[in-house]
Amino acid sequence: MKIALDAMGGDFAPKNTIEGAVLALREFPKITKLFLVGERPRVEAELSRLGFEDPRVEIVHASQVVEMSDGAVESVRRKKDSSVSRAVDLVKTGQAEALVSAGHTGAAVAATTIKLRTLPGIERPGIASVIPTEGNVFVLIDAGANVDARPIHLLQYAIMGAVYSRHVLGYANPSIGLMSIGDEDVKGSDFTKEVFKLLKASSLNFRGNIEGHDLFENPVEVVLCDGFVGNVVLKTSEAIAHAIFQWLKHELQKSHVRMAGAMLAKGAFKAIKKKTNYEEYGGSPLLGVNGICIIAHGASTPLAVKNAIRVAAESIAQQINPHIVREVRRYHESTPAAQPAPAHT
Amino acid sequence: MKIALDAMGGDFAPKNTIEGAVLALREFPKITKLFLVGERPRVEAELSRLGFEDPRVEIVHASQVVEMSDGAVESVRRKKDSSVSRAVDLVKTGQAEALVSAGHTGAAVAATTIKLRTLPGIERPGIASVIPTEGNVFVLIDAGANVDARPIHLLQYAIMGAVYSRHVLGYANPSIGLMSIGDEDVKGSDFTKEVFKLLKASSLNFRGNIEGHDLFENPVEVVLCDGFVGNVVLKTSEAIAHAIFQWLKHELQKSHVRMAGAMLAKGAFKAIKKKTNYEEYGGSPLLGVNGICIIAHGASTPLAVKNAIRVAAESIAQQINPHIVREVRRYHESTPAAQPAPAHT
Repeated sequence: MKIALDAMGGDFAPKNTIEGAVLALREFPKITKLFLVGERPRVEAELSRLGFEDPRVEIVHASQVVEMSDGAVESVRRKKDSSVSRAVDLVKTGQAEALVSAGHTGAAVAATTIKLRTLPGIERPGIASVIPTEGNVFVLIDAGANVDARPIHLLQYAIMGAVYSRHVLGYANPSIGLMSIGDEDVKGSDFTKEVFKLLKASSLNFRGNIEGHDLFENPVEVVLCDGFVGNVVLKTSEAIAHAIFQWLKHELQKSHVRMAGAMLAKGAFKAIKKKTNYEEYGGSPLLGVNGICIIAHGASTPLAVKNAIRVAAESIAQQINPHIVREVRRYHESTPAAQPAPAHT
Repeated sequence: MKIALDAMGGDFAPKNTIEGAVLALREFPKITKLFLVGERPRVEAELSRLGFEDPRVEIVHASQVVEMSDGAVESVRRKKDSSVSRAVDLVKTGQAEALVSAGHTGAAVAATTIKLRTLPGIERPGIASVIPTEGNVFVLIDAGANVDARPIHLLQYAIMGAVYSRHVLGYANPSIGLMSIGDEDVKGSDFTKEVFKLLKASSLNFRGNIEGHDLFENPVEVVLCDGFVGNVVLKTSEAIAHAIFQWLKHELQKSHVRMAGAMLAKGAFKAIKKKTNYEEYGGSPLLGVNGICIIAHGASTPLAVKNAIRVAAESIAQQINPHIVREVRRYHESTPAAQPAPAHT
């Protein structure tokens, strides 16, 4: 498997990206080529600092880096030699089968969409994030690729989320919930009410509106929302989980008795922390582009980068894009009212 | 103080509302009148079940109840004798100084807006929810009153949130953060970019875009978002906190050693649970209406209802509406570009 890593993308790049790359190469022999895309001197310096040499590594020089303050589409137009754009080019030319970026999400989405195009019938790609519940997982789509979505985009996300849930997560008949305010059909914003109608008219396994409590008490397999809401929900959830553990830690340190109790119970804390730790998930696929792109957390640690590369390798093995194309076609054939979406827009 | 309680509003009404009312009357002698608005026979049955008699109680009969499946504005037009509408009428006629409802949020917002009108310069009311961090609190506005907001509404929420933070929570110069994706100025949806411009041009203490992690690590005093995002964030956060405690409980029950540890550390768990328990906060003021309306959680327990009544009593004492009116006027005077908002729309 041949994977391109945006070595300069992320809050702690290239240090964490290169360390993650080294971990991945050590752990995954099925990777036959890992392109490290970025400023050659800095990438080389990190590799030599780590004393790492591997014939599977190929450095691809890119002289520019997309900064967090850059606009998404502008970054593709103006920084033609950015690490993320060059990583996408490697996928476009077939030298790599997938790319991984922990950098500016908007830039990765724009570069991928512009250079690889979307799949037939898909207008906008969406990030599919896998979220753990106590006994299961669900996929939240869109986690932040498309912040000004139209209702039809969410219908396409529903199709892609269901394909992902079925083919990757193994749910035979994934149910779909629309993140809204109030569980009742009549509730929601003007936007979600439009999405509700589209889903209701489709043959998808649509369960209706869902709210926060449904995520864990009455879970669906696919949670739908626009990229703005999805990103805010995801980041706030992460922050809440982190804050609760911090408070608990401080409370536990307030007395010797509590500290002793915490020692005895530490296995329980570790189990939960592992479950809620994004580093274990690594990265989320950007579904709907004609290629494989894994979006990793901006603050990715080396462990998170390693796992994002693992997700890329798994995605290469899974090849769900043909399933997405087939399901979108099936939607258009089975829903007479549906306007065929223009391909590759 | 004279307060009207929508006795039929909430998932567990009238049982929990009446039990909460009884708790409030026992605890707060400054309440001189509590109107219990709802179906008289059911309210009387609850009171006699509890064996409670108090001359401060006055039952106001309302023959209808707004159901969760009713539309918000339609509920006001079609169910003229609903408990929430009758409770608003008591405030309108001056018989009550505030109302409390744990029922259909949209219906309470619509009834209050239509009957009491908004304050001069405010186009839409917003729900101000107080959220705890480890050492402080912040106010999130709008938590769900206005799900199809326009940018100017968020500017008005910023003014109201700052007034609330200053006069009720005691922050001298509250800073305001706009919930967005990415901390950088250029990031966000088309909607938040418009709001950003309005805030930047104002004399408000605007800190810029914020994300989930900022809420706890780098907190502002006022968190701004539209009612859809605010409601989803709030409910998801509640669900995450609840889920984490559930998982932890199950993990702690997996061995005798862990259970012994949990016993020793139980003070720490209790402290956190108390901090994250919405029942302690009770209810959130609907800011921007010409009157006082407290919105309680739909699943309110008797304790939550009692605390919502406490918040109503505090709001009567605080009287922040004149401050809001003054600050909105000051905004229009100090911001030449600002179009004076139409009063009472």
